[in-house]
Amino acid sequence: MKISELASATDVGVPTLKYYLREGVLHAGVVRSRTQASYDDSHIERVRLVRALTGVGGLSIAAVRRVLEVIEDPGVGPTDVMAAAAASLYEPEPEVPEVRGASKGDTFSARELVDDLGWHIYPDDPALTTLDEAWSACSDAGIGLDADRMRRYATSMHGVAETDVSSVPADPAGAVRQVVLGTVLVDPVLLSLRRLAQQDVAVRAGAISPPPEG
Amino acid sequence: MKISELASATDVGVPTLKYYLREGVLHAGVVRSRTQASYDDSHIERVRLVRALTGVGGLSIAAVRRVLEVIEDPGVGPTDVMAAAAASLYEPEPEVPEVRGASKGDTFSARELVDDLGWHIYPDDPALTTLDEAWSACSDAGIGLDADRMRRYATSMHGVAETDVSSVPADPAGAVRQVVLGTVLVDPVLLSLRRLAQQDVAVRAGAISPPPEG
Repeated sequence: MKISELASATDVGVPTLKYYLREGVLHAGVVRSRTQASYDDSHIERVRLVRALTGVGGLSIAAVRRVLEVIEDPGVGPTDVMAAAAASLYEPEPEVPEVRGASKGDTFSARELVDDLGWHIYPDDPALTTLDEAWSACSDAGIGLDADRMRRYATSMHGVAETDVSSVPADPAGAVRQVVLGTVLVDPVLLSLRRLAQQDVAVRAGAISPPPEG
Repeated sequence: MKISELASATDVGVPTLKYYLREGVLHAGVVRSRTQASYDDSHIERVRLVRALTGVGGLSIAAVRRVLEVIEDPGVGPTDVMAAAAASLYEPEPEVPEVRGASKGDTFSARELVDDLGWHIYPDDPALTTLDEAWSACSDAGIGLDADRMRRYATSMHGVAETDVSSVPADPAGAVRQVVLGTVLVDPVLLSLRRLAQQDVAVRAGAISPPPEG
């Protein structure tokens, strides 16, 4: 199909498709003439994936490219899956260091928490830094996230991770795909479930009135 | 203190502080002369809060303004807390409708899921739409999020919500603050915990080698 047909099939405009081609997140079509290339179902699938990652996943095009590199690398075995997934998903966040600097000398530490929980975590795992920053930001905003509450959150999220890992297929390529995409795309699912569950818990606690019976 | 001193105290530049004043997310100082105003600790606290919400919380200035309006409204009682929190946090996301439109006719439905779980959810809750969209995006990207896996995620996130709601203080103003800020600022904490827990689960399952002993 022509690029205009790819645009119709995916509901994504031709200028955006050309941008994806330039940025290397969409593979080139088969050249038919000096001004025309031909696209197939693999392009439709890829455009949908890029849209999902940039839309609901909230990734930049640069992060999408890194994710695609991990997914497509035939040399990545199951042993590297979690590390590759983690590395591909961390984007430099210019705002964060200031927030961290504003911390009020709390002794909260992600490292202490995971040690206390007995979790097996690499010393240089970037999620430790992210957790420290997010924890400091809560503290700066007056949200009391004490060690007990953190342990309860950690227990719930360990349950999420058990579901994550049990869903990873045995073949390496499928595993990488599942872990990388599952991490990015399932985050919004989990946060929506948190909002809904809060409402249910509040209704059950009598804090808000129940919704009308269907 | 002068605005330059507020800048030093918060590590936020004067141009950014003036932007916050113009956008109404930072209250004006006491006017001392035609060109000078005086700021106090309440301004330091507010600047830290705005930084936390825009940095780790990832909110736009417009969303920060809505959150602050909810926190500061003395008329908001505990009954309105969850609804106000939900309403203040949803930003229009232009990318999402296309992603939803690209769904492949799956019969997944957030409404069916919450009904199946017996959760009490209002029919027009925006998190239902967000969940449907995030679920469709997973499906479009080839992430198999079947009903069983969704139920397991939902059970874990219900545990998170129980911790959330049990941490809400009894006074209405404190409750609103805790729920609104806690929802935005605790999201990154939970997602970091998910990454760390994935690593622990993968090590325990033998999928990756354990970190070196400290």
